[in-house]
Amino acid sequence: MVTAHTPQDIPYDRIRAVEWRDGRVILIDQRLLPGRYEHLTIATVQQAAQAITDMVVRGAPAIGITAAYAVVLAAGVRFKSDPAHWPAAIEADLELLAAARPTAVNLRWAVARMRGVISAGIAGDPTPRLLSEAQRIHTEDIAANRRMGELGAALIAPGSQVLTHCNTGALATGGYGTALGVVRAGFAAGKIKDVFADETRPWLQGARLTAWELVQDGIPVTLIADGACAHLLKQGAVRWVIVGADRIAANGDTANKIGTYTAALAARYHGVKFMVVAPTSIVDLATAEGAAIPIENRNADEVLQFAGTRTAPDGAQAWNPAFDITPAELIDAIVTEKGVVLAPNAEKMRSLMAQQM
Amino acid sequence: MVTAHTPQDIPYDRIRAVEWRDGRVILIDQRLLPGRYEHLTIATVQQAAQAITDMVVRGAPAIGITAAYAVVLAAGVRFKSDPAHWPAAIEADLELLAAARPTAVNLRWAVARMRGVISAGIAGDPTPRLLSEAQRIHTEDIAANRRMGELGAALIAPGSQVLTHCNTGALATGGYGTALGVVRAGFAAGKIKDVFADETRPWLQGARLTAWELVQDGIPVTLIADGACAHLLKQGAVRWVIVGADRIAANGDTANKIGTYTAALAARYHGVKFMVVAPTSIVDLATAEGAAIPIENRNADEVLQFAGTRTAPDGAQAWNPAFDITPAELIDAIVTEKGVVLAPNAEKMRSLMAQQM
Repeated sequence: MVTAHTPQDIPYDRIRAVEWRDGRVILIDQRLLPGRYEHLTIATVQQAAQAITDMVVRGAPAIGITAAYAVVLAAGVRFKSDPAHWPAAIEADLELLAAARPTAVNLRWAVARMRGVISAGIAGDPTPRLLSEAQRIHTEDIAANRRMGELGAALIAPGSQVLTHCNTGALATGGYGTALGVVRAGFAAGKIKDVFADETRPWLQGARLTAWELVQDGIPVTLIADGACAHLLKQGAVRWVIVGADRIAANGDTANKIGTYTAALAARYHGVKFMVVAPTSIVDLATAEGAAIPIENRNADEVLQFAGTRTAPDGAQAWNPAFDITPAELIDAIVTEKGVVLAPNAEKMRSLMAQQM
Repeated sequence: MVTAHTPQDIPYDRIRAVEWRDGRVILIDQRLLPGRYEHLTIATVQQAAQAITDMVVRGAPAIGITAAYAVVLAAGVRFKSDPAHWPAAIEADLELLAAARPTAVNLRWAVARMRGVISAGIAGDPTPRLLSEAQRIHTEDIAANRRMGELGAALIAPGSQVLTHCNTGALATGGYGTALGVVRAGFAAGKIKDVFADETRPWLQGARLTAWELVQDGIPVTLIADGACAHLLKQGAVRWVIVGADRIAANGDTANKIGTYTAALAARYHGVKFMVVAPTSIVDLATAEGAAIPIENRNADEVLQFAGTRTAPDGAQAWNPAFDITPAELIDAIVTEKGVVLAPNAEKMRSLMAQQM
């Protein structure tokens, strides 16, 4: 079901990429922004998995939260169908969700956390207990973003210009944002005076989503073509490149939206600092290094066409990896809700993850 | 006047971005490719300058040739209006042409060459003499491209994959192409087995024009989003990045389409060789280094829209430099019709330009 809204100004604290309402998951359809602001109502785990694959909802934290709520939907159906054996039957649903996109680790992290609650045993109707856990994942994510916003902004000198890539704001998370949370906190604190955003082909998350969020907030945003990154950084005004992450390996290597690595190389060459902002749910200690992170290849049509208009000639192929890996050596700071890791390496990441909150 | 054609297979040796026919300049309207293959007929110098500014025709060599033919149009009008004083009166037309785009030096080079013929003195109707000079510029460009194709291909190991940026083919030149001439010669000689092409936002010269030319030629072409460049080069299969140039400074610093510098940084980091292919008409010894080359900033709408559809929200700004500067230190070879300069610097460029053909 599609609910249409009149386009209007929506401050970030009213943007909810994912919401639980009346036993359904409500998603902003991010494929349509900024031209149309519409919600999609998700009633089944199958619909949720499809919405994640199709990028109705995207951003590692947001798809993790969506998956958590989808487990609640699945449990309702499985419990009704077989109150005795639903915990075994739901395993197929959990697998379906975890496989909806391969690179972002939050999908599997959120599913694993919900599985843990199921495995611990729930007496009777599992919906209240699982909904409570999903909502906890959601609210913890928002709190983590707020904390990362403070920690990241503290690294930035007053009056700086920054560059960001893809969308890491309220639309990509439970709310507020990771890298864009740092931008919001930094702008509020006078650390950041304005923001450059890569348009982020092929899906144009920067042009469509980040610019939309920042315009709503009244934060000055200037888009650039992705290829203009090195030329921009050469001008000398940008002090930080600030990005999110879809998975951080045990040594600090970071998978993020395609183009991040290209920007990181340009940043290093020009002495511009490079900051990754992500909750610790994105850190995957089981993956030793970036080379072991699976990279999703998406449909060539995302590169060959736009908005239904074919831009390339028939006969042209396209290669469309959705993510790339920025090696830890190019990263100056990884900002998490547990703290900041400067010049990340395996030892520092391990000790970060060992901390109790 | 617009002449429409049925889209059809057009081998590169029949692609003529610029042609003189029956006293008019005929341009392929490159804004419409690959969806529509149409020609625009240019009857006045004003129309020619506007067509260059609007990118009906683009590519440094092609706009130089267009300007040369436009001088023929201008001379016809000026001579008819005042047979005694047309050489003084035409100066305003030459200035108009030279100012149509600021970065590519060929516009000024071609105008200067035509001005030289005028200054030398032409008795009676100047059209035949000036047309002959413009046609010489055109045929010399094609011959230079053929020669550069051989010289560039000779640098490449058999069976290589290469990456190119923007469009440097028949559409960007008098015919055949500069960097794409090397691709054509290299493919024919078995040096190049397939080609990756950056889509080249914002104007999509790679997706729209390079892919179109290569598909017509039967050369396998795979498009990538510009941001995917570093991730592609990390895979290790691409051995050369091959690009054209809009102006080469005296020290070898090279102005080329925005995104070239970003790709050059990624190439250097991964040990991939970087080749610039351009005729010596593009070398500007009067400009000491890249920092002194004027960079054209084009309309923000080129970034805020995609293929004619607005993609960014109202309120978002864009920065749209059309070119960037790749420093000589990142360039492994500059290939010209006079020869190849490896690891370019001011001394090597000076001695290249001092050579007689």
